[in-house]
Amino acid sequence: MLVKELGEFGLIEKLRKLVGRSPGSVVRGIGDDCAVLESNSKEYLLFTTDALVQGIHFDLRYFPFYFVGWKGMVANISDVAAMGGTPQGAIITLGLPGNAKVEQVEDIYRGAKAASKSYDCPIIGGDIVKSPNRLFLSLALVGKVKKRDLKLRSGAKPGDILAVTGDLGGSEAGMRLLRRRKKIGLKELNTLSRKAPYSSHLRPRARLEESKALIDNFAISSMIDLSDGLASDIHRIKEESGVGAEIFETSLPIAASTRKAAEKLGLSPLKLALFGGEDYELLFTIPQRELKKIQNKRLDFPVSIIGKILPEKMGILLVDASYRRNQLAPKGYAHF
Amino acid sequence: MLVKELGEFGLIEKLRKLVGRSPGSVVRGIGDDCAVLESNSKEYLLFTTDALVQGIHFDLRYFPFYFVGWKGMVANISDVAAMGGTPQGAIITLGLPGNAKVEQVEDIYRGAKAASKSYDCPIIGGDIVKSPNRLFLSLALVGKVKKRDLKLRSGAKPGDILAVTGDLGGSEAGMRLLRRRKKIGLKELNTLSRKAPYSSHLRPRARLEESKALIDNFAISSMIDLSDGLASDIHRIKEESGVGAEIFETSLPIAASTRKAAEKLGLSPLKLALFGGEDYELLFTIPQRELKKIQNKRLDFPVSIIGKILPEKMGILLVDASYRRNQLAPKGYAHF
Repeated sequence: MLVKELGEFGLIEKLRKLVGRSPGSVVRGIGDDCAVLESNSKEYLLFTTDALVQGIHFDLRYFPFYFVGWKGMVANISDVAAMGGTPQGAIITLGLPGNAKVEQVEDIYRGAKAASKSYDCPIIGGDIVKSPNRLFLSLALVGKVKKRDLKLRSGAKPGDILAVTGDLGGSEAGMRLLRRRKKIGLKELNTLSRKAPYSSHLRPRARLEESKALIDNFAISSMIDLSDGLASDIHRIKEESGVGAEIFETSLPIAASTRKAAEKLGLSPLKLALFGGEDYELLFTIPQRELKKIQNKRLDFPVSIIGKILPEKMGILLVDASYRRNQLAPKGYAHF
Repeated sequence: MLVKELGEFGLIEKLRKLVGRSPGSVVRGIGDDCAVLESNSKEYLLFTTDALVQGIHFDLRYFPFYFVGWKGMVANISDVAAMGGTPQGAIITLGLPGNAKVEQVEDIYRGAKAASKSYDCPIIGGDIVKSPNRLFLSLALVGKVKKRDLKLRSGAKPGDILAVTGDLGGSEAGMRLLRRRKKIGLKELNTLSRKAPYSSHLRPRARLEESKALIDNFAISSMIDLSDGLASDIHRIKEESGVGAEIFETSLPIAASTRKAAEKLGLSPLKLALFGGEDYELLFTIPQRELKKIQNKRLDFPVSIIGKILPEKMGILLVDASYRRNQLAPKGYAHF
């Protein structure tokens, strides 16, 4: 059977069974944003990896090397943020085709270093291998988290409130706007990278500070970062927590710039918000009793209540403006 | 400038400068087999990564998926062994082309799991991404090492003895024998994988136990695992320790099976031993005063004294049977 027939979710489930149970020093193996290991009496070790492949995750016609490095770092730091942790160090593996230029590799590293400085996550190692056709970047990160701060995908309970930071669909909108154009000059891309929704795609942020503020202020029961898209990632909370959920269409936070892009592109803003990947916002759940607190608390960033956790048998439901409920499939920025 | 013009050593040096100095919590950044971070009062955290790319590191005509998984794990565990540490967990990133089959991915995982069991290093996470043309495997590993056991590439001093475990050139010899043939059946490959020198290429071992025994018994001043080949890897000790070395041609350990393969292949056994990669033996240095001890100590594995550390200005010298000294270039299993 081909991997693309089975799908990513199915394949991961198969591999998880094959790998089997982890020993006691492994607090959390396959199935979360990071693996979690025992470290010392107060902290756990976090360990994650994420890869970007040319032609799949980025298109060099409108995605300069600098941003490849930046985004690779941010995607991994975002995984650490989703667990409630702090990054400690990154290792960068580069797969380079025969015609790769030194300047291109330096640009990747410059972008990675900028993210490294922004998020206080030193680059502490690297590996360079030859890749026959396409450039790829595989990053691995270690971090730490106070034991009491650890957040998993698996703690959501029926009745919990479903919430998300920031806004959704910006990265997908930015990418589609860029894709419509032919080659764009580096100077213009640099300018665009500071303007929504392009910024969401080219220069995404990791929600490290948001994660800390949420954990400091609320009893978070589960958390995940939105890398594949809401429709897909909510299913990971479903799988790991053994719950269902309802998501209120009208509550999804969509920025004005994303709505404007959607209009330009002839796309539904709702679809961008549900199925667009790489927003790196935090999707999390809190117990019902925390609802008032989160509604009244002044935070430095927007938080939207977008739904509710349900018993597992209800599945993942999308509730429209007329209160009609439809099953939401785990589609999204599908890898296969 | 093209990366292949500058070379891997030159590129890494450039990137190291670009990355700059690491903060205090980083005991060792770029430039060793693993990065080293503070963990707790007694131990350091080790962190490493290694990638295998189809068509570069393995050829599917004679290198089955099972061994891809095995070798990926061993290459990383070997890096931990070279630092004197113990592996704690591995994350596997797979880049899969569109025609990848579920059974192939399962075979990679079966091989990785076998190594995981052999070396007590659980697989604790994974990532699957699409890769346009070729399959690649990027592994990241964390491990730990007692602070007093940490071995670096940087501790060698002029006058130290240069030694190596096991024997050299087997993996290159095995690969070249396999490469001469057309497609080989899976059953035959399984049989060959238990027979030297094929075993060195298909089913290499990580020298974890050897590393422990060496550290327990001798004052090791520097250590590295031989992944790119002796001629190349001795230059890494040179760079990091700021020393030169002389290597005695006639002292290099070469197995009878490798000599036989060399004859069959019309190659010099010496060249296989100097330039062949992926033997994963440990190359290490000890102070002169330990020489007697290592010569008399009964260990469960062979150790050969192959040379001596010299002042840096001498460079790396190869000494032949007539005591002629020639500079040894950092050639080897060159990535570029």
